[in-house]
Amino acid sequence: MIKPEAFSPEERLAVYRAINERRDIRHFVPFELEEGVLRRILEAAHAAPSVGFMQPWDFIVLRDEALRGEIRDHVLAEKEKAGKHYTGERAELYRRLKIEGILECSAVVAVTCDPERGGSVNLGRVTMPQAAQFSVCTAIQNFWLAARAEGLGVGWVSVVDPAWIKARLGVPRSIELVALLCVGAAREFPPNPLLQTMGWRRREPLEKVVHAGCWGTPYPWGASVGREKP
Amino acid sequence: MIKPEAFSPEERLAVYRAINERRDIRHFVPFELEEGVLRRILEAAHAAPSVGFMQPWDFIVLRDEALRGEIRDHVLAEKEKAGKHYTGERAELYRRLKIEGILECSAVVAVTCDPERGGSVNLGRVTMPQAAQFSVCTAIQNFWLAARAEGLGVGWVSVVDPAWIKARLGVPRSIELVALLCVGAAREFPPNPLLQTMGWRRREPLEKVVHAGCWGTPYPWGASVGREKP
Repeated sequence: MIKPEAFSPEERLAVYRAINERRDIRHFVPFELEEGVLRRILEAAHAAPSVGFMQPWDFIVLRDEALRGEIRDHVLAEKEKAGKHYTGERAELYRRLKIEGILECSAVVAVTCDPERGGSVNLGRVTMPQAAQFSVCTAIQNFWLAARAEGLGVGWVSVVDPAWIKARLGVPRSIELVALLCVGAAREFPPNPLLQTMGWRRREPLEKVVHAGCWGTPYPWGASVGREKP
Repeated sequence: MIKPEAFSPEERLAVYRAINERRDIRHFVPFELEEGVLRRILEAAHAAPSVGFMQPWDFIVLRDEALRGEIRDHVLAEKEKAGKHYTGERAELYRRLKIEGILECSAVVAVTCDPERGGSVNLGRVTMPQAAQFSVCTAIQNFWLAARAEGLGVGWVSVVDPAWIKARLGVPRSIELVALLCVGAAREFPPNPLLQTMGWRRREPLEKVVHAGCWGTPYPWGASVGREKP
């Protein structure tokens, strides 16, 4: 008996495909992002879970070229400042990293969090105050996966001074900047993350990050596991 | 010409289906969660983006009933404590809210963040130190959507004292608890979030959370938009 809530094998594979083929994109090609597509992606973000159903997110869509140019200059300056932490080969690799596609993408979307939305006492935030910001991040991942399903790439630019961005966009003091996203047509969706390919860091095996019962006890994966396919 | 990175209309709809039919589940029915399925869901989480590719997440899978009983008692005690913030009708509604399915679900998964993984200076975290925690949340959303595609429900329990959970699971001091997730067979996937149905909070219209160019300027959605379907 197939339950109504079950996904078909094809549907299941499509979800895994979006998850596995999503990349952090910094190389975009010219593309006019249709309003209908943008709206679907934003609706997907807005369908995310949120603590106490507070929906603490806002999305500021930036298309203006002059504004984007200013933001790009800011990011490049911040990149140079942050780069002083690196030395030797690492510094050279850092210098070569392209960390944004602000001018080439179709739209930049600033994503914010209002931690007080729905009142200062919010269900679930008494014990975990960061839960509002966490909810915004689940919305960002929905945005990212929906964009991938639309054939579009998204890049998260985190080398920014949130205070500068907030001031430039007129974001009130009580609202926090969570992310600056570039969305558009990706030049390509490489099989692996760029930072992996460039040798910045390797991918950890799943075994290393899954514990059983308590911290530090490796999960006892059965011998048959791993050969199964979705 | 169909590009190789394009999703078919059916694949695209499947991704939107997972996003739209995902719910925060607190009612589970008995179900043995197969190791292969659990692994696929964890692999999906592990495929999330992370700042500087730091992969700061760990997942502690909890199946033991006695341990889960302890955690449930803790959550109920925390719920009562946090409930003192509410009065009148709100307090009564709060009392009736079921906020966890710790004993009924198939497995509880504690998700943590190691903000120092890959060194104390990490690409993108010089400017946005919270980016490590944000990355963990994108992994949680992948977990949630993959579970939905597998026909499974996930509930995020945030009414916990992170310090208590960390101590009980032996999590090192430098590692942060981000989420406690219940995963298993949902009794149902209701059409709307439970908190919406129960009248805790209403869903905001998308128009209210999308701005254009700067904070407070409503996005000028064209008249044709909104009638389009994915």
